[in-house]
Amino acid sequence: MSVLRKSTVALVAQRAGVSVASVSRVLNNLPASESIAAKVRKAAEELGYVPDAMARSLKVGRTEQIALAVADVGNPVYVTMMHAVSEVVREAGFRLVLSSTGNDPNDVVELLDNLERGYADGVILSPLRITDEIIARLTSTRLPVVVIGSLPQGVLLDNVRADSRTGVDIAVARLKATGRKHIAFVNGPVDTVPGSARLTGYLAAMESRGLPTTADMQVEASDFTYAAGLEAAQVLTAQATPDAILCANDLLAVAVMKVITSKGLRVPEDVAIVGMDNTDLADHANPSITSVDLGSAERAREAARLLLARIEDPSRPSETTVVSPWLAERESTAEGASRGKNVKARKPELEEGVS
Amino acid sequence: MSVLRKSTVALVAQRAGVSVASVSRVLNNLPASESIAAKVRKAAEELGYVPDAMARSLKVGRTEQIALAVADVGNPVYVTMMHAVSEVVREAGFRLVLSSTGNDPNDVVELLDNLERGYADGVILSPLRITDEIIARLTSTRLPVVVIGSLPQGVLLDNVRADSRTGVDIAVARLKATGRKHIAFVNGPVDTVPGSARLTGYLAAMESRGLPTTADMQVEASDFTYAAGLEAAQVLTAQATPDAILCANDLLAVAVMKVITSKGLRVPEDVAIVGMDNTDLADHANPSITSVDLGSAERAREAARLLLARIEDPSRPSETTVVSPWLAERESTAEGASRGKNVKARKPELEEGVS
Repeated sequence: MSVLRKSTVALVAQRAGVSVASVSRVLNNLPASESIAAKVRKAAEELGYVPDAMARSLKVGRTEQIALAVADVGNPVYVTMMHAVSEVVREAGFRLVLSSTGNDPNDVVELLDNLERGYADGVILSPLRITDEIIARLTSTRLPVVVIGSLPQGVLLDNVRADSRTGVDIAVARLKATGRKHIAFVNGPVDTVPGSARLTGYLAAMESRGLPTTADMQVEASDFTYAAGLEAAQVLTAQATPDAILCANDLLAVAVMKVITSKGLRVPEDVAIVGMDNTDLADHANPSITSVDLGSAERAREAARLLLARIEDPSRPSETTVVSPWLAERESTAEGASRGKNVKARKPELEEGVS
Repeated sequence: MSVLRKSTVALVAQRAGVSVASVSRVLNNLPASESIAAKVRKAAEELGYVPDAMARSLKVGRTEQIALAVADVGNPVYVTMMHAVSEVVREAGFRLVLSSTGNDPNDVVELLDNLERGYADGVILSPLRITDEIIARLTSTRLPVVVIGSLPQGVLLDNVRADSRTGVDIAVARLKATGRKHIAFVNGPVDTVPGSARLTGYLAAMESRGLPTTADMQVEASDFTYAAGLEAAQVLTAQATPDAILCANDLLAVAVMKVITSKGLRVPEDVAIVGMDNTDLADHANPSITSVDLGSAERAREAARLLLARIEDPSRPSETTVVSPWLAERESTAEGASRGKNVKARKPELEEGVS
């Protein structure tokens, strides 16, 4: 990136009365308002610059890469996000590269150190844990950043959030409507952003709907993974006899269903199961699993849009978008199923009358 | 990367009588033979260079990034590969970035164009289709490249291969040993590297074991995806009554099992199912699915090792490694199961005597 190139673009920007980023967009044929485009072309012409050559030069300066950093590429919710981000940024001429940051907050810091060396024009992060160190790093980088996941109040970063609390509430409401009363909760670690929000949501939903819950009915898996879900389900079934199990993601739900059916219980007749994230896993499971859709594709698209806007105009005010959840109903909570086993745990009238 | 730095390292390499890459490895504390390390340190000392500063300078010249390009990040076989590559390259001080190339061969060419601009020190590719264009691009790049997947004879690139043919043969042998005779095959597209190899393997295995197969028993899914598997399974079940279905990957197997059980057939009692790749999907399925393990983790680790060796010494001769397959047996081919339905398709003696 030569100093000469920078000043050429800067001169055009100055003359046109627009930002350097706007000049870059126009010369790279990215979407820009017609009035801005006209100003840029006019200024370039007046200064005697050949837009094509400038665009080529700009392209060299840009990496044309957008990085997406997720906690676990093995979780299909991130695959959905990846495809959605890729679609949006490709249209704008960028290539998506993916990094797995794992569970270690230091990974995020290291990744930013690395990206700042010039491997991406911006980054979308979806960390499991938001530490003070990560926030300090994110707010000090010159790299355009968008965070998918909730940030503490007062942090001025572009931010796209799910509404886990409402999502959990929708699931509990539906389970109650189909006659379930003993709704257990298999959560991921509560020191994570989703784990914390989902536990709060579960407790609030149970209380507001007059459903009792005890410590026996709540199990915290060691991670948001299938293996952790198997262990958590063993713990839960050893200490409680729920007629419904809400799981903090679909990997946990698939694991819980495996353990439940291995004990001779039927899904949904004896136990209803609900996952979260509405991934392919929930759809491919047999029976298919009802899952709270937290708008992963929509969040990812919105994050990509915010990042492109930030790249174009680094000085724009930060934005926070909250995407609303909905329930994708499948076989694991079907109402029509007759319930033959595990009757003791429920009142007799619940065994009939659901159709 | 300054010319000064290059010549400093080159001078040390020349004096030590080793390659520039070896100097780089020693100064970056990467694994190197003790004799080479001693030569490099001696030469650096004699020339009055401070190894630490040189190492820092070298680090700036290197991207410290390795790219892994896969056809579909949503396929868990690639997640396995990603984790395995990441482990190996991290130990050597590199960060892994992932790119999805999709089904379009042009994507691979574009990706290489991009990486050559200096975003990675090397790339591991696992394309679904190996076109002449891709080979031309791969053999002309100055970027260290390793291909996971079979290459045409005579292509001098580091290459790690699965042995799909043997893998399919092991599966067919096992199905025959458990009394299955009507073994159908749900393949992915035959114009892909795995699709072509797996079809060849299926036909050879059936013939060599004296098992008849007809066109009705072979369905080519439009892709290696779950959705394509659902369609293929509908076609297969409409035209044939197999007692076993071999699927060209686990996503197809999960889809086939869903269709089979939706028709009231039991797995494994009525129909045995075998997948390929031995991913988490096969393990998480209910019943769990027997799958041919094509050594995805081992192939990925080997590819990472070859790439690190190539980065160290760009002039070393190219290597081809073939990883042997094995069968991960699970519930979907269990022998003990009694077979009540679909009896007509088999000889009576097969209904008993398996335990």
